[in-house]
Amino acid sequence: MTMQITTPAPQAPAIPGRGRLRPLGQHEVRITGGFWGERQDVNARNTLAHIGGRLESEGWLPNFDLAAAGTLPTGRRGREFSDSETYKYLEALAWEIGRTDDAELDKTFRAVVARVAAAQDSDGYLNTNFGHPGQEPRWSNLEWGHELYCLGHLFQAAVARERTRPGADDGLLPVARAAADLVCREFGPDGRSAICGHAEIELGLAELSRVTGDERYLAQARLFVERHGRGTLRDIEWGREYYQDDVSVREAEVLRGHAVRANYLAAGSVDVAVESHDDELLNALRRQWSRTVARRTYITGGQGSHHQDEAFGFDWELPPDRAYSETCAGVGSIMFSWRMLLNDGDPRYADLIERTLYNVVATSPSADGRAFFYANTLHQREAGAPVDPSATSPRAGSALRAPWFDVSCCPPNVARTLASLDAYVATADDTGVQLHQYVPASITTTLPDGRVVAFDVETDYPRDGRVRVVARSEGEWTLGLRVPSWASSAMVRIEPAAGDAEERTVSPGQVDVKRVFAAGDAVILDLPMQPRFTRPDTRIDAVRSSVAVERGPEVLALESVDLGGDVSDAVVDVSSPPAERDGRVWVRIAQRVSTDTGWPYRSTTDEPLADGVEVPLVAYHEWGERGPSTMRIWIPSAE
Amino acid sequence: MTMQITTPAPQAPAIPGRGRLRPLGQHEVRITGGFWGERQDVNARNTLAHIGGRLESEGWLPNFDLAAAGTLPTGRRGREFSDSETYKYLEALAWEIGRTDDAELDKTFRAVVARVAAAQDSDGYLNTNFGHPGQEPRWSNLEWGHELYCLGHLFQAAVARERTRPGADDGLLPVARAAADLVCREFGPDGRSAICGHAEIELGLAELSRVTGDERYLAQARLFVERHGRGTLRDIEWGREYYQDDVSVREAEVLRGHAVRANYLAAGSVDVAVESHDDELLNALRRQWSRTVARRTYITGGQGSHHQDEAFGFDWELPPDRAYSETCAGVGSIMFSWRMLLNDGDPRYADLIERTLYNVVATSPSADGRAFFYANTLHQREAGAPVDPSATSPRAGSALRAPWFDVSCCPPNVARTLASLDAYVATADDTGVQLHQYVPASITTTLPDGRVVAFDVETDYPRDGRVRVVARSEGEWTLGLRVPSWASSAMVRIEPAAGDAEERTVSPGQVDVKRVFAAGDAVILDLPMQPRFTRPDTRIDAVRSSVAVERGPEVLALESVDLGGDVSDAVVDVSSPPAERDGRVWVRIAQRVSTDTGWPYRSTTDEPLADGVEVPLVAYHEWGERGPSTMRIWIPSAE
Repeated sequence: MTMQITTPAPQAPAIPGRGRLRPLGQHEVRITGGFWGERQDVNARNTLAHIGGRLESEGWLPNFDLAAAGTLPTGRRGREFSDSETYKYLEALAWEIGRTDDAELDKTFRAVVARVAAAQDSDGYLNTNFGHPGQEPRWSNLEWGHELYCLGHLFQAAVARERTRPGADDGLLPVARAAADLVCREFGPDGRSAICGHAEIELGLAELSRVTGDERYLAQARLFVERHGRGTLRDIEWGREYYQDDVSVREAEVLRGHAVRANYLAAGSVDVAVESHDDELLNALRRQWSRTVARRTYITGGQGSHHQDEAFGFDWELPPDRAYSETCAGVGSIMFSWRMLLNDGDPRYADLIERTLYNVVATSPSADGRAFFYANTLHQREAGAPVDPSATSPRAGSALRAPWFDVSCCPPNVARTLASLDAYVATADDTGVQLHQYVPASITTTLPDGRVVAFDVETDYPRDGRVRVVARSEGEWTLGLRVPSWASSAMVRIEPAAGDAEERTVSPGQVDVKRVFAAGDAVILDLPMQPRFTRPDTRIDAVRSSVAVERGPEVLALESVDLGGDVSDAVVDVSSPPAERDGRVWVRIAQRVSTDTGWPYRSTTDEPLADGVEVPLVAYHEWGERGPSTMRIWIPSAE
Repeated sequence: MTMQITTPAPQAPAIPGRGRLRPLGQHEVRITGGFWGERQDVNARNTLAHIGGRLESEGWLPNFDLAAAGTLPTGRRGREFSDSETYKYLEALAWEIGRTDDAELDKTFRAVVARVAAAQDSDGYLNTNFGHPGQEPRWSNLEWGHELYCLGHLFQAAVARERTRPGADDGLLPVARAAADLVCREFGPDGRSAICGHAEIELGLAELSRVTGDERYLAQARLFVERHGRGTLRDIEWGREYYQDDVSVREAEVLRGHAVRANYLAAGSVDVAVESHDDELLNALRRQWSRTVARRTYITGGQGSHHQDEAFGFDWELPPDRAYSETCAGVGSIMFSWRMLLNDGDPRYADLIERTLYNVVATSPSADGRAFFYANTLHQREAGAPVDPSATSPRAGSALRAPWFDVSCCPPNVARTLASLDAYVATADDTGVQLHQYVPASITTTLPDGRVVAFDVETDYPRDGRVRVVARSEGEWTLGLRVPSWASSAMVRIEPAAGDAEERTVSPGQVDVKRVFAAGDAVILDLPMQPRFTRPDTRIDAVRSSVAVERGPEVLALESVDLGGDVSDAVVDVSSPPAERDGRVWVRIAQRVSTDTGWPYRSTTDEPLADGVEVPLVAYHEWGERGPSTMRIWIPSAE
């Protein structure tokens, strides 16, 4: 008997039509606990309701009701791009419903969609800030209006829903299609030759094309990508690089300008390049990724050093104390890297994703999921004042996590990332399955030739470096394991259900274990979790002669609450490696005895060092959880 | 015969009613050439006409004509504070007319005043951006409207005119008084308890009170000073510290927030404190000055590290590559320091003024006085594109000097400072005259007891360290000479017209030479001009393990045009001091051989150093004069 194997489309963001690796969606990968499972639970239990409540109380969701009632602009609240937060919230709900099949959330989802749908004009236009009587006309301010940006997020929400609940009758996909059709008419080859000041529409259209099979959307996405760099947007104080309208995507050497815009555009450009078999464009994006990571990325994976324009600085311009490192830029960087990973299969992309997940995405939300960092500084020089949990912060660069912001892009961006995180854990190709992120999980998929691959991942990573993969299916396939670049002495050990174990040391990169698996066969990856000192490239002037401490994928931080004093004068002893004790990492810190002498620039600096004491560090993603504190990742070294 | 000695009010900005030192104005001190005399000439020949032309062509001066014609808001151009540029231009013209008695400039001055006066409402209100039919109402946006700020500059212009042409019939003083009277009615004890979002009115009113003798203006200035820190202005993303409305002036520990606002407020607060005999307030300002200089000031004297809010950062937050160091903040710092110097007589204030004059004020304008730096970075990482001399730059942080800016506060601020610079050279007290800045000059004044003190200053400073003071009058008086804090081995030599010379070494601070002078007696100060390496306080993380090179009061810079390559990889050899040869300063620079390795954070950094070569430096104020270049002041040291 021959069985026709039909592989259902995975429940995953970004499903390219080709590439080295095939994404595995929520039905194939299920995170079952651990570091990320806990965060998914907090996201589901607290964060989604927190966001939904804020969207109501801030008036951003009621704006759609005003549009439907025809009473706009009276009573409209929020910034010009506030519609997009509702769409990201919808996307987060869609992934969460896909993940847990929560009926209450599904009800919420449908209710929100109904309100959004009611606000759509008959020709497909949908925006609560433009185009109604008494408002500025549609598309009248492409630099700052964010209309296409908002629609891009609408499309991502509709795609998430269609991938998790194909053919659902909630009406979101028709809303998205009507809007996309309008965009194609307005901005198509015969329409305005223009782009949006905030990239996102490219990504949304490309994904919508994948879900609907409608090639027009992909063609429109390609048009938008190709139009960047033609200077159709107005020159501004920060230059046209702010919105990536200075140089074409094809010619750019590096990501530049607004870090979220840059990453969103890059991710959308990968989608377009992949579907168009445009290798020149892919090469350009690969080049940009490499230089951006080599020269414009913080040790946390964070990107964007400018507060002013939320932008990348020049190469090597990475001040820790003025790190903006917007949470959304981290999310965008993951979207870009993930798409490159699917296309190229190179584990360095997954390395950056891991780093960014642990040190940007996990850093933003508080332990209870109801407060967030918008910016993620690497050095907090003054302890912030306690935050009112009921307030809305006007400050993106707050020193403590805030419940909500005047510009609140980050909370729903974290929420949609966590809710879809199962889809970033593993991929498949013709030979087997590749594990990119280590988290307790249950994985089952079918290879193109019909072989079923099923296994569990058991791990307490990153608390512990052991990852145990236990086969649930029988047969030959290849297990790909990413050995992170920092893992200089990793081991792989095979423990068959029956027979002798074997082990070998492995180098950073991807390790393939090809094997005829029996149920119960275990493959164990042991990653070295000794904390380590890390030094910056000498061209990163801002952290010269300083070291960071890392442990596995986690960057650690020194907080004043542990030091018992301000971190300004701390000097770390690097003569022996950081120690691990009582579940914490300790370093020896001496306090410099500094005194102001009126003018801080002198012919000599000769300041005594007090005796050092052992001080525990925290994971950077945990900092700021114990009240106001100063903090630093890079510590001057006494060498 | 007894003569009644009447000392005319000096032609000087800031004439306090009391203090250790009495300012000497343009009639008493005349700069006769040298570094600053040349710049005053360029200012007179080129800059003033350049500014006047731009005020016309940008529409900022014609805005007054529109107001007079009653046709506003139609046709109004420029930002909400553009009126103030006309007022600073008027102030610069007034000082220049006082300095050179130029009849053409006087005609220009009167013509501009006539246009301004015609725009004033009958009740004294004067602003082209508010209060006319079709515009926002008066005082409706105190946070951002800048109405009081503009008036403060109007008052400074009127004060400059009254001090240089007392009783002139041009009509400016009546315009100012009418506006000040309105301000006192609107914002007086019984009026709105409010402040302006940009300090300046305090200073303007205090000075106007001094010129007119009208105590109401001083009382109103005091009210504005005392109202800071009460949170009457709206909270914003950058916090109320942006406009110094977070903490009262009396309680603040340090300058914070917007660096121009902070310095203008501090200067106005000194005026108020001095006239009110408010020693508590003076103590607070002294404390703020000290901590700001010790912890929040660049080696150039520049202040303000944030581009986003043009603001001070936290203590020690002084990134050289993201130095904003706005030219206007330098001007404001000089106004603050000068007032403290007059009150306290402490030469450290004059030290900072010298540093800021040479490295901020002199840096901003190009050699021809027709282009300007708005921000003054200490590290230019990418060479800027050539600037169109006819264009208006939207960018404050341009990499090359630009002819004009959308916000063009800096050019007229430099112009008024240079035109009034004679008044910052020397002061007098009951015993004699103190020289604060070294420049060729002719000085004549009368002490309170009637003694006439007259002498010339001959010097090629800072090219040469010798300053020669030659008496033109006879009699006993005390010559005060400032020995800058960097001058560790200065000498003073007395060469009498007749008799033996004597000399002694002197320490930094003020040196007093008390003597019965005969005409022709010379006092020679020899300052050590050997270039020197300077090291930062270890708490300034951003320049750790780097050195700057200074020579006299000038900070030097390494430019790529001299290095023959980018400055990113430069390492300086500090084993022997910088050399002076052929009129330039040379250091030995090695280029680090750096290669990108994908991820810039590693367990070790071990990069070879190429052989060093001798490279000449330029004075920082000269950088960027030879086309696009990268540049750095702080150079990593090989020690």
